Amino acid sequence: MDKKTQSKINAAKKALEFVNDGMTIGLGSGSTAAKFIKLLGQKKLDIIGVPTSVESKNIGENSGIKIAEFNDVDKIDLAIDGADEVDENKFLIKGGGGCLTREKIIDYAAEKFIVIIDDSKLVKRLGEKFPVPVEVIPLSWKNVKKKLEIYGEVKLRKKNGKIYVTDNGNYILDIYLESIQDPKKLEQDLKLMPGVVENGIFTKNISKIIIGKINSVEII
Amino acid sequence: MDKKTQSKINAAKKALEFVNDGMTIGLGSGSTAAKFIKLLGQKKLDIIGVPTSVESKNIGENSGIKIAEFNDVDKIDLAIDGADEVDENKFLIKGGGGCLTREKIIDYAAEKFIVIIDDSKLVKRLGEKFPVPVEVIPLSWKNVKKKLEIYGEVKLRKKNGKIYVTDNGNYILDIYLESIQDPKKLEQDLKLMPGVVENGIFTKNISKIIIGKINSVEII
Repeated sequence: MDKKTQSKINAAKKALEFVNDGMTIGLGSGSTAAKFIKLLGQKKLDIIGVPTSVESKNIGENSGIKIAEFNDVDKIDLAIDGADEVDENKFLIKGGGGCLTREKIIDYAAEKFIVIIDDSKLVKRLGEKFPVPVEVIPLSWKNVKKKLEIYGEVKLRKKNGKIYVTDNGNYILDIYLESIQDPKKLEQDLKLMPGVVENGIFTKNISKIIIGKINSVEII
Repeated sequence: MDKKTQSKINAAKKALEFVNDGMTIGLGSGSTAAKFIKLLGQKKLDIIGVPTSVESKNIGENSGIKIAEFNDVDKIDLAIDGADEVDENKFLIKGGGGCLTREKIIDYAAEKFIVIIDDSKLVKRLGEKFPVPVEVIPLSWKNVKKKLEIYGEVKLRKKNGKIYVTDNGNYILDIYLESIQDPKKLEQDLKLMPGVVENGIFTKNISKIIIGKINSVEII
């Protein structure tokens, strides 16, 4: 197993310690969250999982976890989700997988939100390695793209040569910034644009970051 | 013809004076905008119409107006749209017809935005007669509804006994407020909620309000 995979598993294992019988758990998306969901299934706890994507729903079901939609539960006790970048202030970029809107809905609604990453995801400033994804209503993508270009280069996300469409039927614009000076302000400014549904900067409700390393974990 | 219909036509006729050959026009939704679109078609100007709804697209096409999607034009010179309520500060509630998101995208992107109403739409304070519509991602409607209840009674919009679905595939929550103290703040607070796509308070980019009366028009 490579170092990164082992680090992700170490973070996912640590997160299991925060899950108890009777909880409703937000199930994140992405490779680290997928490892967590599989391990969670093996524990055979009496829990309900609320998925943040079609993919996490499938992994949850295949792992034997009882799945419910967000509209069918009263509250989410704990959300466990990955991230593409985490900075020194515990702010995140998420949405490399395209599920940012559902992730933000679930992660921000949860009573507690724990982020699990391998240590390659740590950055000094957000935006160093990953673009910021912005989910847009398809009929306004060109107009929003023009407005986002004040921040950096903007690309319409594609997959296999076709425009990538989110679980909500929208498009993703990826902004390539040099670095983000004020993530809280950028998160708000992006969301306020007409035609923008959500963006991949997460600065709220984050309880803990579990950083998996090759032989250990660190919690901040 | 009843008084209200005549007043709407008077407002729509006045708005025609602001349209010139060569313009790209945002075509609003609702009964007053529909009258404007039909009158605009009769003028046989060399213009392009960008619709804010499937309905306004159909009316435009049937009226002989050349129609383009927003992604296919460089800019919108002028948007003409109706409103459900207009207050003394030229702030609006829109979205009784359920097209608020596309309307806000087009109306806010236009170089100029002219509102056409009959005089029954004037209120001292927004929220007196109409609820504020909020477009939400379906999977989060119950969570958003709970959060919106701090403002007043909230109802999931239905049509013919079924949940109403917007042109964007989302739901509408209608908030029944006594009156709105600070429309600018409410517009922003609603939009910032995860799961909310857009809301029907319009406080920006409004150039003029044309108020149609039975025998005259007033412009503010």
